[in-house]
Amino acid sequence: MKEVIAIVRINMMNQTKQALTDCGVDAFFAHEAQGRGQGFVNPLLLAGAEQGYEEAAALLGEKGKLYPKRVLTAVVDDSMVKCVVETIINTNQTGKPGDGKVFVLPMSDAIRVRTGEAGLKAIS
Amino acid sequence: MKEVIAIVRINMMNQTKQALTDCGVDAFFAHEAQGRGQGFVNPLLLAGAEQGYEEAAALLGEKGKLYPKRVLTAVVDDSMVKCVVETIINTNQTGKPGDGKVFVLPMSDAIRVRTGEAGLKAIS
Amino acid sequence: MKEVIAIVRINMMNQTKQALTDCGVDAFFAHEAQGRGQGFVNPLLLAGAEQGYEEAAALLGEKGKLYPKRVLTAVVDDSMVKCVVETIINTNQTGKPGDGKVFVLPMSDAIRVRTGEAGLKAIS
Repeated sequence: MKEVIAIVRINMMNQTKQALTDCGVDAFFAHEAQGRGQGFVNPLLLAGAEQGYEEAAALLGEKGKLYPKRVLTAVVDDSMVKCVVETIINTNQTGKPGDGKVFVLPMSDAIRVRTGEAGLKAIS
Repeated sequence: MKEVIAIVRINMMNQTKQALTDCGVDAFFAHEAQGRGQGFVNPLLLAGAEQGYEEAAALLGEKGKLYPKRVLTAVVDDSMVKCVVETIINTNQTGKPGDGKVFVLPMSDAIRVRTGEAGLKAIS
Repeated sequence: MKEVIAIVRINMMNQTKQALTDCGVDAFFAHEAQGRGQGFVNPLLLAGAEQGYEEAAALLGEKGKLYPKRVLTAVVDDSMVKCVVETIINTNQTGKPGDGKVFVLPMSDAIRVRTGEAGLKAIS
């Protein structure tokens, strides 16, 4: 089992939910977050800023700024990870900075509270 | 060490907190989330919907709809996992859809910021 | 790769963000949470409460109370974990209860949605 965490644009939540459902993943949860990636810096702007051009530096923006995001978490069987990751990429890839990240974490166990079922039975 | 993540009904937070404390787990954190499970579909409704009865389809509801939930996270020693999971199940199990899930993840290390203590010392 | 999760005081978010950036970590995300640690109990107060002094018991406070916190998550190469953890401690350590915790979790994979790059390339 793996925990798949997708950080996506706010306005991509519905499409991503639908894509996961189409992929056969019906169970997931989501929360609001703020985040940033490594940034995507125009090399000309960077060169300008490094040479002391204040306008270029201003356009580079504040480094620590965080943007509103949505975090979508699904717990899936190992065999589903590839499909889920590809689905998230296909749905969210615009090629522009801010498209988001997908993280895959190992999971030791999952339990469905209603029935007490554990392992793969809890997530299928 | 393991990270135990419980997704529970909003109105079960206080009972779950108390149950964890009774179980000897004093340190945890929580956040708001929205989620859904695999759904729990009345087979008669499903059969009706598949035969084209629109009323039955309407009663099945929108598949991607997410419900408000609370996510409670505790980091505990491996020896505590069983007790914690059973406590969460005993406290939250109503037998109805929406009782929630428990996820158990491996953890590499934990550090208490106040003292710099690492490992089990940081969580006990 | 590791997921480093820091639970810090609300008013320490900006300093912690800046410290991570100084440490070379530019990509992270954050969300609001509520939490509590093991508590930090004055032994005199505890002894008083155990002897039945109600004032002492009242000062010990409600055990299950959760305090507003911020959760900051960064995904970094294994070689960065030590620096990131030390930076978070140095920035947030006051020596008083509530300084927070740092959790380090193993990560199976990371993918940058914009480019589809996986592994270390996705986080550097």
